[in-house]
Amino acid sequence: MRLSQFHLATVKEVPADAEIASHRLMLRAGMIRRLASGLYTWSPLGLRVLRKVEHIVREEMNRAGAIEMLMPSIQPKELWEETGRWEKFGGQLLKIKDRKQQEYCYGPTHEEVITDFARNELKSYKQLPVNFYQIQTKFRDEIRPRFGVMRAREFLMKDAYSFHLTQESLAETYAVMYQAYVRIFTRLGLTFRAVQADTGAIGGNASHEFQVLADSGEDAIAFSDGSDYAANLEKAEALAPTGARPAPSAPLQRVDTPTRKTIAEVSSFLKVSPQQCIKTLLVRGRDGLVALCLRGDHEINEVKAGKLAELPDQSVLAGEEEIFAATGARPGFIGPVGLPDSIPVIVDRDAAVLADFVCGGMADASHYTGANWERDARITRIADLRNVVEGDLSPDGHGVLHIARGIEVGHVFQLGQKYAEVLKASVIDETGRPQVMTMGCYGIGVSRIVAAAIEQRHDDAGILWPEAMAPWRVAVCVINPKNLPEVAAAAEALYQSLVQHGIETVLDDRGLRPGGMFADMELIGIPHRVVVSERGLAAGTLEYRARGESESRALGQDELFALLA
Amino acid sequence: MRLSQFHLATVKEVPADAEIASHRLMLRAGMIRRLASGLYTWSPLGLRVLRKVEHIVREEMNRAGAIEMLMPSIQPKELWEETGRWEKFGGQLLKIKDRKQQEYCYGPTHEEVITDFARNELKSYKQLPVNFYQIQTKFRDEIRPRFGVMRAREFLMKDAYSFHLTQESLAETYAVMYQAYVRIFTRLGLTFRAVQADTGAIGGNASHEFQVLADSGEDAIAFSDGSDYAANLEKAEALAPTGARPAPSAPLQRVDTPTRKTIAEVSSFLKVSPQQCIKTLLVRGRDGLVALCLRGDHEINEVKAGKLAELPDQSVLAGEEEIFAATGARPGFIGPVGLPDSIPVIVDRDAAVLADFVCGGMADASHYTGANWERDARITRIADLRNVVEGDLSPDGHGVLHIARGIEVGHVFQLGQKYAEVLKASVIDETGRPQVMTMGCYGIGVSRIVAAAIEQRHDDAGILWPEAMAPWRVAVCVINPKNLPEVAAAAEALYQSLVQHGIETVLDDRGLRPGGMFADMELIGIPHRVVVSERGLAAGTLEYRARGESESRALGQDELFALLA
Repeated sequence: MRLSQFHLATVKEVPADAEIASHRLMLRAGMIRRLASGLYTWSPLGLRVLRKVEHIVREEMNRAGAIEMLMPSIQPKELWEETGRWEKFGGQLLKIKDRKQQEYCYGPTHEEVITDFARNELKSYKQLPVNFYQIQTKFRDEIRPRFGVMRAREFLMKDAYSFHLTQESLAETYAVMYQAYVRIFTRLGLTFRAVQADTGAIGGNASHEFQVLADSGEDAIAFSDGSDYAANLEKAEALAPTGARPAPSAPLQRVDTPTRKTIAEVSSFLKVSPQQCIKTLLVRGRDGLVALCLRGDHEINEVKAGKLAELPDQSVLAGEEEIFAATGARPGFIGPVGLPDSIPVIVDRDAAVLADFVCGGMADASHYTGANWERDARITRIADLRNVVEGDLSPDGHGVLHIARGIEVGHVFQLGQKYAEVLKASVIDETGRPQVMTMGCYGIGVSRIVAAAIEQRHDDAGILWPEAMAPWRVAVCVINPKNLPEVAAAAEALYQSLVQHGIETVLDDRGLRPGGMFADMELIGIPHRVVVSERGLAAGTLEYRARGESESRALGQDELFALLA
Repeated sequence: MRLSQFHLATVKEVPADAEIASHRLMLRAGMIRRLASGLYTWSPLGLRVLRKVEHIVREEMNRAGAIEMLMPSIQPKELWEETGRWEKFGGQLLKIKDRKQQEYCYGPTHEEVITDFARNELKSYKQLPVNFYQIQTKFRDEIRPRFGVMRAREFLMKDAYSFHLTQESLAETYAVMYQAYVRIFTRLGLTFRAVQADTGAIGGNASHEFQVLADSGEDAIAFSDGSDYAANLEKAEALAPTGARPAPSAPLQRVDTPTRKTIAEVSSFLKVSPQQCIKTLLVRGRDGLVALCLRGDHEINEVKAGKLAELPDQSVLAGEEEIFAATGARPGFIGPVGLPDSIPVIVDRDAAVLADFVCGGMADASHYTGANWERDARITRIADLRNVVEGDLSPDGHGVLHIARGIEVGHVFQLGQKYAEVLKASVIDETGRPQVMTMGCYGIGVSRIVAAAIEQRHDDAGILWPEAMAPWRVAVCVINPKNLPEVAAAAEALYQSLVQHGIETVLDDRGLRPGGMFADMELIGIPHRVVVSERGLAAGTLEYRARGESESRALGQDELFALLA
């Protein structure tokens, strides 16, 4: 491509409302333009990148035996009423009335439509297993669209749905899809983790999220340095400590801790480590208040708490007056010692092995020291309540955990029979009897991957594309072509030669000054830059620089081709 | 592709509600499945064909220098209010309210969005000309969706929009697009005509429709056998007759023609040809009734009539009582002789050169014979009022016209400044002054092409795909593979060899009986069928049949490859 015949529109100003790097850089590089809240036009430059992602996704889906099809984006209300999701899906479902007042939605996902297709098309176990996919524009009416295409309302997604006679068959296809996803993100050149995900309200047996690692990611993930283990922070198990609880060695004493409420304040004031303190949270349980006790340096894991029988799915901290009424103490001074018997005390595994600990004094401006379980405080039950932290042992027994932030770009689910059951999607099995099909579903956020890659790979000058995602692999920059026809001709010849060798190249023939040209090529993230200049021509060399490097080097043409091969 | 690993789902029954061949055959072949009114799922088989069309369209658009991008499908109301089309577009515009009660539409076309993009992105004449395109799902809320994907509500379209400083530049790009369209439809293997279209309410200077010829087409088109001339019937000019009107030679006589009203009845009763009769229509003009006179064998062209100064855009025939009140005569017996002076008489060119003609007697049950213009009847004005007919001279002076029916699959327009003006899309010209840009737009109905091709090419057994659109070029059918492993192995080897030669092949390894297998391959329209059987294997030959042929022939493998090369 010659840039003079392309529409490149980089922007110098940093857009004021763009909060994250990918949003800023996509706007500055001119990859996207905002049309309205959560709605973006993909410019020619942006679309080149989007199509590369789409192409790799398609190739790997086909290689994995999935069959491409295309469902309508507009879906009838009736199907969503059959599954009960017309109401349950919530405000993200964009509802539409047509000219005849029939109701539809703009599909945010296609479980209903594909299961309807399957119940009409699939009659016999002989047609199974089968895995259908599509790459299609979806819409979710986000209440607060932001971060550009990272959380846009209209976005491009690959969604696949597999149908099976048995759970074993589903597990096989699930493994094939998992491997296909590993290939996709590896080919895209991204650093990622496949993490065990909480299946949450969606149900089903197994679920993995594919997370692109990036500091700006919304999800925290824990992964082992000694194995493939990776899980969302909310899902990662904190192993039980191996040692037993030491015997009490200190007397229980109440000490004044005026105005010190937080663990940091108290531990600093009493000169004990936070690891030696107990943090007590009072939350509203299904049947009155419940106390959750954690080690002072640990954080509550709300998903784990939500799975306790005593608590609702989403627990809420009790308010100050509520706490005072129930215990006579104020937040900041609550602890398990002297808590009314009516309040269950659920203790995290790590908190449960502490002895001689510090905890709230159950009276204003005081804490206990030398507190001990059993002797001074009840334990109703021990449970895993906390988030894992950097350095925890991996739950699979191999290595220690690290914590990173990630951006979810893919998700594989074993759906089971949830949709097939309610939509009555059955096939005849070997014995001639109808069997409800078992399903898997497999999503990839195609447009989100573009933003996630930038979050992972950028510097002050702009984007650092992996080669597979770059709009072009190589940029040939010509210095002063209008005044130096022999330089222009040499650049043209090099460009032609690169293209003939199948190397995707852009020729910057716009006639800009070197500074502007180089800044553009760095901003839009071209992995390899080659400068053709009068001086280089005289020396018989090209000036080469890789996008991540800070120095250029002189290369002969053969060396350049060897490097790009 | 091995069919055993594909989802082929042909259907024996002819769907009751499918009115045209392409709709019936697409359902029977399992290319599409209906989800709701005007909404279709493209099955894996259908999508293969759709993608082939899309691929050729994209290649030729790129070759023609157009630059691909992607706009949102959901568009904000505000832009459509700027152009006034939020109301004017009518019921086909699917209007949507989001969760914040903001209004949007599902884009039926993208003039508003692209012109908004252009007014933000294009600042200087140096960026022009530029031609942006996208291939994208659109929605038109048809009041009566029908004919399957031929007139679906959700459909796939290629839409391109070019921007220019001058009309000359627009004309150049228009010519390039015209040629690109010729290449696209030629490569697709379709018989088509590029016809001059009436620009109608859309405005602009020039417009061509690309019509795929098919008997079931909704549009009538006239084309020359001696030149490239082609036009919509509504637009095709009927040339003025070359000879002058003969002098009157017969006396005017009123004859009884009891109950004979139509031209056919009267000409047969009076034993004169319809060409010697005058047909008179009384229509409601802007200012009272107007008489339109045509030769008896000709039909009124309503578009031409609508362009007369005396008539509104869409003229309406006067009612019986209205006619009687104005003239004292009844429909069937109206003619130019004795018509009140208040009624203008506009005469078609061919009608105006008649002498001694038959026309209505202006009294019940009578006609005139030997009527003559000027002597017996007024002519207010002579105009081209009629549809051209088979055998008319071509208006460009080369050849004679033929009439065919067509399906519109593409449209190129010189839009001019209509949208750029109202949306204030300007660039700075060479002198530093702002200039409103001039635009062209260029559409192709990608999904409609699939149906149009079937309308043009099918027989009783099914579809006859052009090679470029076929889901696969070659089908290898294996006879009795389960019992004859050497036959299965030979078929597999042939399949592998074809694929390695880059020939898109499907192996029918489903183990069906020959009849079912052949019927499926004919129904889905595979151009080349090769049968591998025990008998052929013994003889060292393959049984080959082209889709359009009725007989098979024995070919050696080398001959087969030569034929497919």
